[in-house]
Amino acid sequence: MYNFMYHTPTEVCFGKGVLADTGALVKKYGGKKVLIHYGGGSAVRSGVLEQVKQSLDEAGIAHVELGGVVPNPHLSKVYEGIELCRREGVDFLLAVGGGSVIDSTKAIGYGLANEGDVWELFEHTKKASGCMPLGAVLTIAAAGSEMSNSCVITREDTASKRSYNDEIARPRFAVMDPAVTTTLPAYQTASGCADILMHTEERYFTNGGNMELTDAIAEALMRTVMKNAKLLKDDPDNYDARAEVMWASSLSHNGLTGCGNDGGDFASHGLEHELGGMFDVAHGAGLAAIWPSWARYVYRDCLPRFKKFALNVTGVENVGTDEEIALAGIEAMEDFYRAIGMPTNLRELGIAPTEEQICEMAHRCYVASGGPKGSAKKLDESDMAAIYRMAK
Amino acid sequence: MYNFMYHTPTEVCFGKGVLADTGALVKKYGGKKVLIHYGGGSAVRSGVLEQVKQSLDEAGIAHVELGGVVPNPHLSKVYEGIELCRREGVDFLLAVGGGSVIDSTKAIGYGLANEGDVWELFEHTKKASGCMPLGAVLTIAAAGSEMSNSCVITREDTASKRSYNDEIARPRFAVMDPAVTTTLPAYQTASGCADILMHTEERYFTNGGNMELTDAIAEALMRTVMKNAKLLKDDPDNYDARAEVMWASSLSHNGLTGCGNDGGDFASHGLEHELGGMFDVAHGAGLAAIWPSWARYVYRDCLPRFKKFALNVTGVENVGTDEEIALAGIEAMEDFYRAIGMPTNLRELGIAPTEEQICEMAHRCYVASGGPKGSAKKLDESDMAAIYRMAK
Repeated sequence: MYNFMYHTPTEVCFGKGVLADTGALVKKYGGKKVLIHYGGGSAVRSGVLEQVKQSLDEAGIAHVELGGVVPNPHLSKVYEGIELCRREGVDFLLAVGGGSVIDSTKAIGYGLANEGDVWELFEHTKKASGCMPLGAVLTIAAAGSEMSNSCVITREDTASKRSYNDEIARPRFAVMDPAVTTTLPAYQTASGCADILMHTEERYFTNGGNMELTDAIAEALMRTVMKNAKLLKDDPDNYDARAEVMWASSLSHNGLTGCGNDGGDFASHGLEHELGGMFDVAHGAGLAAIWPSWARYVYRDCLPRFKKFALNVTGVENVGTDEEIALAGIEAMEDFYRAIGMPTNLRELGIAPTEEQICEMAHRCYVASGGPKGSAKKLDESDMAAIYRMAK
Repeated sequence: MYNFMYHTPTEVCFGKGVLADTGALVKKYGGKKVLIHYGGGSAVRSGVLEQVKQSLDEAGIAHVELGGVVPNPHLSKVYEGIELCRREGVDFLLAVGGGSVIDSTKAIGYGLANEGDVWELFEHTKKASGCMPLGAVLTIAAAGSEMSNSCVITREDTASKRSYNDEIARPRFAVMDPAVTTTLPAYQTASGCADILMHTEERYFTNGGNMELTDAIAEALMRTVMKNAKLLKDDPDNYDARAEVMWASSLSHNGLTGCGNDGGDFASHGLEHELGGMFDVAHGAGLAAIWPSWARYVYRDCLPRFKKFALNVTGVENVGTDEEIALAGIEAMEDFYRAIGMPTNLRELGIAPTEEQICEMAHRCYVASGGPKGSAKKLDESDMAAIYRMAK
C-alpha cells in the first residue's frame, strides 16, 4: 500500500431540478461575471443552457457565452475562450456540458491564470501556478471531469491529444441532474459508460500498491455501472439508472478508486488518446475498442488482478486455472461491451489504421508518456504498436 | 432516490510518516498561530505530539497547547479552549487525537466564530455563522470526525450529550498515519471499528431513498472493516489492516455511504448518546451494545434492507424466509462483535440502568431528537425505552 493524497473539494449538487441552484453556487464561489462555455446545439435544444442562464440572471450574475466545443476539444477554442474572457473581464468559468466542455473550460482557466502559451502545460514543459475558478453543469455522464484534476486537449494542427493534471483545476462545484442526460443518443450513453468503467479499470489493474477498501469500492462501482449501462440500453428514460451512472462518473475519476495504489496503469488511455487525436473517435468507444487487446497483451504480468476482476466484477465462476479465469473475465467484458453497443476492436470502431499510422500512434504515445507506460505491464513503443495491431 | 449534496473538502494526507507534513498543511490553510488540542497522555507518550510540534516549528508556526480532552468530550474543556485561544490570538486549530479531540476542537472553533454561548448550537436554538479553520492529526480510527461535518459534546452538569452538524466545521485537512494507531489498547481498536461500521449502518438501514452505487460502496466498506477488525484482534501491528480501518473511518462518515438516501436512521446513535451522557461508556462499545436490540426491534419495518445486509455484508446464505435471513444477519453481526471483544448488550458493556434511568434516557433521547427518531422505523419515547430494556 502506498501513501496517498485525497482531495475532492468539489461541492456536488445532485438530483432533479438542481440546475436552478447554479446561480447561487456561482455566487457562493465568488463569481460576478461568468463565461458560459458549452458544446454543440444539444445544450441549447434541451433547454439546459436557458435554465442555467435564468438561474444566473436570478442571482444577478452577468454572463457571456462561448459554444462550439467539440469532442476531443480543440486548442483553438481554448485560445478563443481565453481571449474572450480577457476582453470581457470574466472572473468565473462555467462549463455546461460533458468532459470535453469541462476540459476546454479548465484549459481556459489555466490560460487566464498563467503567462505564456497554455499549450506548454500540455507539453509538460511548464507547471501551472493557478487556474481561474470554475464550476460545471454536467450534461453527459462519462469523463468525470466535473470532480477530477484532469484535462485533455487536442491540438489540431499536429493532431496531438495531450493531458495535464493539476489539483488547482478541480471544479468548485458540479451541478448534476441525471434527467438532463435522458435525451442523449444511445451510442453516447454507452460510450460514457465505457469511459466511466475505464477510469476505475485504469486504477485497478496495477502491480503497485493495493488497498482492500479501494478494491472493494472499485469493484462495487464497476458492477453498478455495468448493470445500469445495460438497463439504459433498453430503457433510456430510467432516471435511477441515469443517476447511478452519473454519480459513478464522478466517483470513478475523482481519485477514490485509486487510493493506496501506484497511480494506476492508464496505458489504454494513452493508446486511445492517439486514436482520438488521429481519427476523432468518441473517447469511451475508443477505450472499449482498445481495452480487450490491451488486456490480452498484459494480463499474464498482472494475473492476480485480472483474476480478481473476473471473479468480483464480471461474475466469472471460480473454476479453472488463474489464466483461464482471467481470460474468461476479459471475454465477459467484451460481451458486456457488445451488449451495450460498444466496439471491441478498431474495425468495429469504424477505423482501419495503416501500419504507418500504427507506428506513428505508438511513437506519439511513447513520447507523450515520457517513456514506457503502464503498471499492469510497462509498455514500450513496440508493445504499443503490437496492441494497436492486435486491436485491428 | 433523493437529491443530495456531497461536499468533502478535507485534504487527506494518508500513510507512513505523514505527520511531518502537518506544518506545511497548516501554512497552506493560512494558520499562523495554532492551538494544539489533544487528549490524555497517549499523544505525549507515543511521541505524536512531539512530531507535530516539530513539524510546526519547522514551518515557523507558533503554537499553544491544551490537553486533557476526555472521551465524550466535555463542554467545560471547550470553554477553556475558547478562552485560551482568545487570550493567545490563535487563528488555526489543530486537533491531535480521535473523534473526541476533533469534536472538542470543532466546538472551540464554533465558540470562537460565534457570539454567545456555544452550547446554544448543541441545543439547536441557534445556527452557527462560522467556525475557525481547523485541521486534524488522527490517532484513532473510529469517529470519522476528521472528514465529517458532525460534532458531539457532553455537558457535564446535566449529563447531556448533544450533536451539532454543520458543513462549515469540516476540517481543512486530515493527517492520517495508520502506524500511530498500533499502540492503541485492543478494546479501543475494536470499539473504533464498531463505531466505523455503525456510521455506515445508520445510513444503510433506511426506508427512504436508495441508490445502488451507495449501497454497493457501503457494503464494500462494511465487509472490509469487519474483516480487518478481526485481523487486528490477533495482529495489532498489521499496518495494512490499520490502514484499511483508518481510511474506512473517514469514508464511513464523510457522507459517501449515504448519498441518495433520506439522511439515515441514526436512532442507535441517539440511544447511545444518552448512555454515553449518563454512564460515560466508550462510544463504539455503547453502539455495539445497543445495535442488536435496536435491530431486532425494527427489522420487520425495514425487512428488504436487513435481508440485503445479511446477504451482502455478513455473508448469510440465501436460504429461508426473508425474516429468517434478516435475523441470521443480526446474529452474524452479534457473532462479529463477540469475535472482536465488543459487547452485544448493556450487561456486557458493564452497566445496569434502573427502570428509572431507562425512562430518563428514553425521554432525553426523544427530546434531543426533537420528536420521533429513525428511518428503518420511527421510534417514539416508549419504543426507545423498550429497546433499552431489550438491551439489558
